[in-house]
Amino acid sequence: MPEKKAEGKTARSRERYEQRRQEVVDTAAKVFAERGFHATTVDDLVAATGLQRGGLYHYIDGKMELLIAIHERFIEPLLSEAREIAERDEPPETQLRSVAHALMGDIASYRDQVTVFLHEWRIIESDPAWKAIRKARKEFEQIITDILERGREEGTFAFTDSRLTLLAWLGMINYSYQWFDPEGRTQAPHVADYFTDIFLSGVRAAPPA
Amino acid sequence: MPEKKAEGKTARSRERYEQRRQEVVDTAAKVFAERGFHATTVDDLVAATGLQRGGLYHYIDGKMELLIAIHERFIEPLLSEAREIAERDEPPETQLRSVAHALMGDIASYRDQVTVFLHEWRIIESDPAWKAIRKARKEFEQIITDILERGREEGTFAFTDSRLTLLAWLGMINYSYQWFDPEGRTQAPHVADYFTDIFLSGVRAAPPA
Repeated sequence: MPEKKAEGKTARSRERYEQRRQEVVDTAAKVFAERGFHATTVDDLVAATGLQRGGLYHYIDGKMELLIAIHERFIEPLLSEAREIAERDEPPETQLRSVAHALMGDIASYRDQVTVFLHEWRIIESDPAWKAIRKARKEFEQIITDILERGREEGTFAFTDSRLTLLAWLGMINYSYQWFDPEGRTQAPHVADYFTDIFLSGVRAAPPA
Repeated sequence: MPEKKAEGKTARSRERYEQRRQEVVDTAAKVFAERGFHATTVDDLVAATGLQRGGLYHYIDGKMELLIAIHERFIEPLLSEAREIAERDEPPETQLRSVAHALMGDIASYRDQVTVFLHEWRIIESDPAWKAIRKARKEFEQIITDILERGREEGTFAFTDSRLTLLAWLGMINYSYQWFDPEGRTQAPHVADYFTDIFLSGVRAAPPA
């Protein structure tokens, strides 16, 4: 079965390629997070990855593509976790807590990538790739908004403005990219639970008198 | 009274100098916010301010001093407002709301300056000026922490971790530097009130049964 063998080999080499590409993306995220996107040259990336210039271009077409790949790196695992949570048959409070854990875990795992995106997204705004990035971000925000609004319909939550309520939740957690130390004493799941407790008490409807 | 006249003239020219210096700092903040600190050259600043290179150096010694002045620009009015609020004889809930208004107003007025600081503070960490910056930031955080802890002592608030409670409050508001549009429909005082309502409900002690 030479065909099958070839197919297996191709899959393996594709996997190796993907893995090496992700390493390049992560290294670039680290360099961009430290020096800023504009100040980083292709030569800096060559030095940081240990690749030749041609080797680097084998994995990535240029700095803008790297910025897009950096966003994919943390948004894809986050989105797939959030989608899975949204499909569960669970109360809104439980779902919101689970998404907080997913988001805090994502920030803890991909802090460089999140930092680069939050600092440099305005650069990609004019790129054709922005449409897909915007779509992914909107989908994540919509999952949260749906949970919040379902909670309001069911009488668990009380709030007047879905957008500002979303932004309060998002800000509380996302801002941790500024202070969260993955090596520190406070672990991401603890932060997610602590912030969720404050937020849920903050939007919980008063019990009927 | 030639002396007095000279004194008056000096005060006026000092005021003009200060005003022009602040304009230079604000222009630099705009350029740094758009292009990043590292990627901005002194020539870029010369072009943006419309000054000659020598004229620029009349107001500022270099890029690092600009970064420090950018921090002062938004932390000083914020700190003086926060100090004034802390001294008032008011309940913790009222004080916390007032500081939220001060912070949201500061972000709305100095969005470029806040953006540059949040994106570039790691650069100043090794500078001797960092000590003063850290002190100002600690003082602001301590004012919030004191309000929270007084509320807890008085039985208004209930929480277990002052630091994480502060970070939840700070994140909710500070993250608005990412999305707040000073020209937009939602005004800063409305955001401050909306977020304060969620946060106060979030940390309010349960009424005695």
